[in-house]
Amino acid sequence: MAAADRVDAATAFARAVREAIDGKTKPVGALGRLEALAAQIAEVQQTLEPVAERCRLTVFAADHGIVAEGVSAYPQEVTRQMLLNFLAGGAAANVIAQALGVEFSLVDSGVAGPAVEHDGLLSRRIDAGTRNSVEQPAMTASQCAAALDAGRLIGGGGSHEVACFGEMGIGNTSSASLVAAKLLGLQTDSLAGPGTGLDAAGLAQKRRVLAAAAARTPAELEPMTALCEYGGFESVMLTGAVLGAVETGKLVLVDGFIAAVSALAAVRMSADVKRHLVFAHRSAEPGHDVVLEALGAEPLLDLNMRLGEGTGALLAWPLVRAAAAMLRDMASFDSAGVSTRG
Amino acid sequence: MAAADRVDAATAFARAVREAIDGKTKPVGALGRLEALAAQIAEVQQTLEPVAERCRLTVFAADHGIVAEGVSAYPQEVTRQMLLNFLAGGAAANVIAQALGVEFSLVDSGVAGPAVEHDGLLSRRIDAGTRNSVEQPAMTASQCAAALDAGRLIGGGGSHEVACFGEMGIGNTSSASLVAAKLLGLQTDSLAGPGTGLDAAGLAQKRRVLAAAAARTPAELEPMTALCEYGGFESVMLTGAVLGAVETGKLVLVDGFIAAVSALAAVRMSADVKRHLVFAHRSAEPGHDVVLEALGAEPLLDLNMRLGEGTGALLAWPLVRAAAAMLRDMASFDSAGVSTRG
Repeated sequence: MAAADRVDAATAFARAVREAIDGKTKPVGALGRLEALAAQIAEVQQTLEPVAERCRLTVFAADHGIVAEGVSAYPQEVTRQMLLNFLAGGAAANVIAQALGVEFSLVDSGVAGPAVEHDGLLSRRIDAGTRNSVEQPAMTASQCAAALDAGRLIGGGGSHEVACFGEMGIGNTSSASLVAAKLLGLQTDSLAGPGTGLDAAGLAQKRRVLAAAAARTPAELEPMTALCEYGGFESVMLTGAVLGAVETGKLVLVDGFIAAVSALAAVRMSADVKRHLVFAHRSAEPGHDVVLEALGAEPLLDLNMRLGEGTGALLAWPLVRAAAAMLRDMASFDSAGVSTRG
Repeated sequence: MAAADRVDAATAFARAVREAIDGKTKPVGALGRLEALAAQIAEVQQTLEPVAERCRLTVFAADHGIVAEGVSAYPQEVTRQMLLNFLAGGAAANVIAQALGVEFSLVDSGVAGPAVEHDGLLSRRIDAGTRNSVEQPAMTASQCAAALDAGRLIGGGGSHEVACFGEMGIGNTSSASLVAAKLLGLQTDSLAGPGTGLDAAGLAQKRRVLAAAAARTPAELEPMTALCEYGGFESVMLTGAVLGAVETGKLVLVDGFIAAVSALAAVRMSADVKRHLVFAHRSAEPGHDVVLEALGAEPLLDLNMRLGEGTGALLAWPLVRAAAAMLRDMASFDSAGVSTRG
């Protein structure tokens, strides 16, 4: 199809979606953002009868060399302990996924220490944690490419229509703040926040560390360079997973600050990503607002959460499911014989 | 127990809930409003292992005499047509309930015209619509009491832990605006909105009609008087259903403007109601803000919806379910062997 024909076809399809939604037995616009969500799913799936019946959450876990600088309220060993907690089904993401009928899977992207062996764990370890990005690039270019590729394969797998991606790793708000700063050409101070719960002195220390790490490189970097210099194995894999999910026609529910930074990197890499993204919730981590604004995104939920693990994405899944069902299954004024307005 | 002992016991229980939530494997407060929701469910059920696995939506339908004054964008026959649409499973509330695993039930509280016979319909018809409240009380005192009692029995039934109540009836934002005005001692202008979609001229007409109806009675009325003078059979039944649900220990998800006005009446009737209420969403109907403020309520969702039928309540159900599961099923730092902050 020629470019102009594609635009015409897209416009005609968008109009058909609008007419289908407006014809449902409800006042025009009365389902608010659920209607826009339904239109987005329809557009991604290119059908007026979209399906969103299966959702999978994939959580990526890894460690960060930058924690040596004292940037987190929790010790590094918590990453490994939480990996085991996920495997035992005791973490927030496990419990919420279970409550909402979402399939759960867990990836070791590079947790420090020896590899954990467990049937419930997909091992895609790039290394036992990244290096300290205050001193040197967090990972090599080949590690970064390997993490992206591994994520892409994971994100492209499965027959679910909707994908949630979560992350877990002590130090990863520091890493994400640095990546976001370099993608957006901003100072790290505008992106640093308390993470898991730093006090004022801890946050001041984190700000100093991030500024020192950022000073190693130019103010703005290409996505792959930013990920390589400052990313984490879990967050680079998450970027790859977003790309893989988009390439296989899935809708992607974007969680909080770290997931949004990974999604921003994916958007910078591929023009097709943005229309697949649904921003699930607004995190209490202050850097999230900056990233959301850069993406022109208005999340569905605002529940003052700041946990990560994909928990925010999970909570928006029922909205996606309901929106698709609305467009697919609601009667129209015509089909139900309901009078339109007088 | 003496009053002081009850206060001590309540304080001790609240502290135990707080400690249980803070001991879960997540930074303190990181699940934001989900934590407050979990605490509320725990308090209602008086257990640290609350259960929210079953939810039922009950939609009450009825007609309003005040539509003779031209206060709605849709003709009165739509109430009956929508009743049939609900019975065929084609309305928004059916489809969203189905998508979210919520049981659906429908009550004819007093739809105009002959009674509809259908296995899926609970007939609790008080009359074939209310009278025109511009001219006279919408219902007699005995009709009002009968509607309240019928609702109470319905709300008290079932073994679900969480109840959603919805309403449908052309003209019912007018009725709800009048009831709210009389409960709060406010002018109707501060509560009147476009409802299903009045234009500016239609809204001006609605405002005139509401002011005329309000002028028949004192500025502030007792709950039963306000309901009798201006209520609808569906909205009075909804008030009764809230009371019945509360009396049987259920959590109640409060939908939009009309459901909130019915809940406000229930709160005025019984001091025990408020702690059972979860305000699901903020409606785009402007009167809702006024009622929410009077109730000191901050809804969980803000999705620019204004449909009623319980659709907003439904969308908050997964949050309730997730919150209960979080408190009941998440591991603690102790049980999972996860280090607390350094």
